[in-house]
Amino acid sequence: MPELRKNIATNEWVILAIERAKRPEEFSKKENFAAHMPAHRDDCPLCSGNEHMTPPDIYQIGKPWSIRVVPNKYPALSGGQTPKLFSDGVIQTMNGVGNHEVIIEIPKHNISIPMMDNSQIENLIKTYYARYTGLKSLPYIKHVIIFKNYGPEAGTSLEHSHSQVIAMPIVPHPVESRLAYALKYFEKENECVFCRMIKDELKLKDRIVVESDNFVALIPYAANSPFHTWLMPKRHMSEFDEINEKEIKDLARVLKDYLYRICQGLGNPSYNLVIRSSPCGEGSSKSFHWYMAFVFRLTQMAGFEMGSGMFINTSLPDNDAEYLRDFSI
Amino acid sequence: MPELRKNIATNEWVILAIERAKRPEEFSKKENFAAHMPAHRDDCPLCSGNEHMTPPDIYQIGKPWSIRVVPNKYPALSGGQTPKLFSDGVIQTMNGVGNHEVIIEIPKHNISIPMMDNSQIENLIKTYYARYTGLKSLPYIKHVIIFKNYGPEAGTSLEHSHSQVIAMPIVPHPVESRLAYALKYFEKENECVFCRMIKDELKLKDRIVVESDNFVALIPYAANSPFHTWLMPKRHMSEFDEINEKEIKDLARVLKDYLYRICQGLGNPSYNLVIRSSPCGEGSSKSFHWYMAFVFRLTQMAGFEMGSGMFINTSLPDNDAEYLRDFSI
Repeated sequence: MPELRKNIATNEWVILAIERAKRPEEFSKKENFAAHMPAHRDDCPLCSGNEHMTPPDIYQIGKPWSIRVVPNKYPALSGGQTPKLFSDGVIQTMNGVGNHEVIIEIPKHNISIPMMDNSQIENLIKTYYARYTGLKSLPYIKHVIIFKNYGPEAGTSLEHSHSQVIAMPIVPHPVESRLAYALKYFEKENECVFCRMIKDELKLKDRIVVESDNFVALIPYAANSPFHTWLMPKRHMSEFDEINEKEIKDLARVLKDYLYRICQGLGNPSYNLVIRSSPCGEGSSKSFHWYMAFVFRLTQMAGFEMGSGMFINTSLPDNDAEYLRDFSI
Repeated sequence: MPELRKNIATNEWVILAIERAKRPEEFSKKENFAAHMPAHRDDCPLCSGNEHMTPPDIYQIGKPWSIRVVPNKYPALSGGQTPKLFSDGVIQTMNGVGNHEVIIEIPKHNISIPMMDNSQIENLIKTYYARYTGLKSLPYIKHVIIFKNYGPEAGTSLEHSHSQVIAMPIVPHPVESRLAYALKYFEKENECVFCRMIKDELKLKDRIVVESDNFVALIPYAANSPFHTWLMPKRHMSEFDEINEKEIKDLARVLKDYLYRICQGLGNPSYNLVIRSSPCGEGSSKSFHWYMAFVFRLTQMAGFEMGSGMFINTSLPDNDAEYLRDFSI
């Protein structure tokens, strides 16, 4: 019989399709899409030597650069004016104020995060931090989303390993809903629901993939999809920029360790990564807790998910975590 | 400059990528995936003559059948026991009580909705009605979702035209959020927000695709994706089973007209259709209004959408509606 599971932190139900669940190894890609990628491509705007193909740097680390940040040539939001809302019945519109940047993670075309040195990944997280704080300081910005689309099934047009940042003048409704639910839990239990989740999961151990002094990567009890992962700071922090230097170093190690297991265990699958942080300036919230979420593009969303907002997971979280624990650097 | 638009009925923002928007015809598929489909396939469990390949009928119309409903062989939810919730910190689980049925829309393999007779489509909507009311009468069911995955990009494994029904023992959180927002609007404005949307859109006319006595198919002002459509009853009804016989006849005509335009204008694209209805027994709600939503699988979701719950639409709703108005049966 299938099972319904609810994520304690989001109040969202998922259906676990127990009878038709696949074994973890069945999700492994037969072919690694990056297996034959060259170290340099003349037509890749993110490769070193092709800097003229992008707008000028906003930020960089190293000379010559080892990481650079440039404006997105085709920005989702652009411009620094004051947001102007116009509202009349069905017409609800605002000028597309905001910023959209591309973080080029490494000069070479064929290196992705699990193949990078620890120091390179540390610099990547420092870059996330620098752009997060830089963008949140703009007067018109309310929310900053750092994300990464990796691989051909993850909606990216560029092979070269990169992340993106979008800073926006509003807080999206689904983000507000998550915050509101976490606040409701806090008011009832006097405890951050994410801290509770971490405490329970560390005690149970079944769904832990990697644990370090400061972080834990786990497959949530009510994971939405195969290998869906939350990489969470153990210390309560609601906004991403509360991370300290020691934690950045530790996160780099955990991120590499975790993605190495994914790459080995699943044949370098396409994925989306997003840092779910409180909106800007809510760093003191006791009820929300930032984390990195990973979604692997191993299955397809369809009408039921669209209609219900609920997912059907054809893999079992405990099995997924156990499978990933068996791979290591 | 991009534009932010908010859907008055859902409170959700979307980014309209105005500079990089494509023209409507650019979304048209080069190849119609159904162009060479045969009228019958020996290995298709939904074809007439292959009835032994499915579980027995729950419901049928015609002798021999012109529409039949069977249990899903691989149900997302199954079983009629009492739902039992177990809750202890991170462990929140319920047995997978519920029903999952497949509606086989027509005996022939290669006929989809816009090619059907009006009477066949009427019978299809009558079947939706019959299964909706049948399932909602079960004591353990709280919400019934009727949906359709059409075409290879819409997450279906079966080519043969079919719909699905999932009846569940809970109301999913995203559905609750939509209801809560509509209620908030009603309490403030003393008007159903969907009725307001219909009134405004009919006055403005720019985003109407098809209008009849009882229904209107429109591209919402804040459409999430290219050609995203809401097919709405003009009369206020919050639950799908409030539809009457005259409206069923009219909906059949509008659905055929609308999907014919889509098929002609977009080269028979893959899509998901879902009937968004109030949960069971909330038929008297003054604040929610049922409708059919169509999402076309012409673009891909990625990390930003996942992180923000917001979409970036690369097509302009007014242009999409105008383009579809130019095709007709």
